[in-house]
Amino acid sequence: MIKEIIDKKRLGFCLSNEELSSIFMGYMNGEVADYQMSSLLMAICINGMSEEEVFHLTDIFIQSGDTLDFSHVPGVKVDKHSTGGIGDKTTLVIVPVVASLGVPVIKMSGRGLGYTGGTIDKLESISGFRTNLTNEEVGEAVSKVGAVITGQTANLVPLDQMIYALRDVTATVSSIPLIAVSIMSKKIAAGADKILLDVKYGKGALVATYEEAEQLAILMQKIGKQYHREVRYVISNMDHPLGNNIGNGLEVEEAVQTLRGEVNGHFYDLCVELASHMVSMAKDISYDEAVLLVEEVIKSGKAYEKFREIVINQGGDLTSIQISSNIYPVYSEQNGTIKDIDALEIGKLSLSLGAGRCEKSDPIDYGVGVVLCKNIGDDVQKGDLLMRLYIHNDDFEVNQSTFEIN
Amino acid sequence: MIKEIIDKKRLGFCLSNEELSSIFMGYMNGEVADYQMSSLLMAICINGMSEEEVFHLTDIFIQSGDTLDFSHVPGVKVDKHSTGGIGDKTTLVIVPVVASLGVPVIKMSGRGLGYTGGTIDKLESISGFRTNLTNEEVGEAVSKVGAVITGQTANLVPLDQMIYALRDVTATVSSIPLIAVSIMSKKIAAGADKILLDVKYGKGALVATYEEAEQLAILMQKIGKQYHREVRYVISNMDHPLGNNIGNGLEVEEAVQTLRGEVNGHFYDLCVELASHMVSMAKDISYDEAVLLVEEVIKSGKAYEKFREIVINQGGDLTSIQISSNIYPVYSEQNGTIKDIDALEIGKLSLSLGAGRCEKSDPIDYGVGVVLCKNIGDDVQKGDLLMRLYIHNDDFEVNQSTFEIN
Repeated sequence: MIKEIIDKKRLGFCLSNEELSSIFMGYMNGEVADYQMSSLLMAICINGMSEEEVFHLTDIFIQSGDTLDFSHVPGVKVDKHSTGGIGDKTTLVIVPVVASLGVPVIKMSGRGLGYTGGTIDKLESISGFRTNLTNEEVGEAVSKVGAVITGQTANLVPLDQMIYALRDVTATVSSIPLIAVSIMSKKIAAGADKILLDVKYGKGALVATYEEAEQLAILMQKIGKQYHREVRYVISNMDHPLGNNIGNGLEVEEAVQTLRGEVNGHFYDLCVELASHMVSMAKDISYDEAVLLVEEVIKSGKAYEKFREIVINQGGDLTSIQISSNIYPVYSEQNGTIKDIDALEIGKLSLSLGAGRCEKSDPIDYGVGVVLCKNIGDDVQKGDLLMRLYIHNDDFEVNQSTFEIN
Repeated sequence: MIKEIIDKKRLGFCLSNEELSSIFMGYMNGEVADYQMSSLLMAICINGMSEEEVFHLTDIFIQSGDTLDFSHVPGVKVDKHSTGGIGDKTTLVIVPVVASLGVPVIKMSGRGLGYTGGTIDKLESISGFRTNLTNEEVGEAVSKVGAVITGQTANLVPLDQMIYALRDVTATVSSIPLIAVSIMSKKIAAGADKILLDVKYGKGALVATYEEAEQLAILMQKIGKQYHREVRYVISNMDHPLGNNIGNGLEVEEAVQTLRGEVNGHFYDLCVELASHMVSMAKDISYDEAVLLVEEVIKSGKAYEKFREIVINQGGDLTSIQISSNIYPVYSEQNGTIKDIDALEIGKLSLSLGAGRCEKSDPIDYGVGVVLCKNIGDDVQKGDLLMRLYIHNDDFEVNQSTFEIN
């Protein structure tokens, strides 16, 4: 009985496979009400789940929809997942880098719900770029140019969509077991052989501390082991925005600059680290060897060339990226050193400019966003340019405390 | 924002008066969804509430509906509340006992949801007994016979009804703060001057242990203090059924026997204890003095006479109580001593016979129920009569382990 299952978790006991199935599949089939599921989710949030429960629930999630199999595409398929963050456009850089080293990449990405768009939204800022490929087109694309970035081609883990929508409105997002199940069920259903996880912590992230990020990463690695998938992870901080550009078209622009080797700094370093892990996993070589290969394909221009190929193959025109020409400069109101740039505040600003969406059905403005002109540690004088806002209307407010200067 | 309020409780923080108001009144007004409220209720169940939060929430509950004022009825009005249990018909005994000692009693009772009916259901097994009195009729009845037992005459604490219905289906009933708020908001809204609480623990009760019952009782006493109501409590065990008769008409029959002084034992003792506390509170005399008065009115027949007056005044005919004439005997299958009689099993049996209801709209059968013929500690031989079932159909099953015999 559903009530007894919820009660068991309220008291902190573990649920059996049968109990998990009956309540989660019951929810999927409409037999369990939203208010019962949200009550269970809150009990899970507070009382946690055992590893056994997490493994069982992952299986239930995977079985709720289709699973993909790309074993007909030659080579080891490595997938990468980031838990997301403000200014995170690593996928746009990593996929061509890895593909230019001969590692096939089938990257299925999503649209964003939040401060900026998802990878698919970002790519749609490129004129003509198609993100709704069929399964056949995905196979053709990988054979032809070695990589593809597209939206989901199948009904993968529909239960996750239902549960996520409920968690989002009931303050039950922050649960390490539930996050792990959500991410890993999708990665496994999407058919990757090996998986690299980029787990963020901090202000703009799903978890707050390094310790929680590590706990999440290790749990996901254990889930992977259940399905015989090699899983590696990188843990990185998300207190500050990643890179300088935030917003869809603007992020494509920064990805291009990075692929051309034109920018250095934390974002470039993270891209190299992630791409090197993927290459190391796919080619079964050491991480250090992989770093040399990755840096070389960026320096030589091969990675950028691969990105151009991928874009052209999916109908896109890199000479036409939507970026607003209406620029609003934000100047420093004081002298001092930049101690902090608040990722969350930048995210909210980006959302208010129109770069993100609150509801699934909201439109997104590809051309707007933020470009940071100063970084943490920089000295600034009153009147120095802190950031440029790319805008389409005046309906936004800049919070001066976004930059902590003293 | 609602999500942030839920999140705060998920993390174990206290909610402010404003936060409690905005989410609970929002729920009342339909602005907060069931699935958000159930998620908050689960967080409260697990993380608890401070006394400040409990006081605020009680106030929000009371303000959600009407409040009654019986200050025009002379005398100190003492109300009694039992947290309920299998075979609990104490109200039927206590009200006439106390009234026969000149203490006015306005008892508003409810219908039962569970194993047997509530006090109102029980009284309706008496032919003609009216339980839907108006406020005016309540005043008249008290003036004329000194006591009245009726259903709610006003829209008291409608928020409690909404929240209770949701708790019932989301495994969030077992929360000491939520139980305390639910009970005390109704008692205070109903206008009693002094309140006696009969708090049960054990198998058939809302809380499992003596310690929890005491915690609940003390919290309710503190709520009472906020409203300047004297509150006393009695804690009693509910592992075993209370008295011998379980079922609506059968319980009226046992109440009559008790009022006539025809039965002894635990149920009689509890009735004397509760009635004596009420008399002690109302007359401001010692408990021991009150006990003497209470035992005297039972012995002299005055208490039974008062019950008859109350019943006649509300249109009832005590010579016509619905009790089925179709009796199914249950015999012992072994020799030994009765170590335990499981209250919960007796409750389930009573429900399966038709004496209770699962859904608010379910009909109730006044005539069916269980009469226990042996008590704990009794020696039995194989073939001895353990209990008589009063039935109207054969759709029930007797669990032999209800009686632990060895």
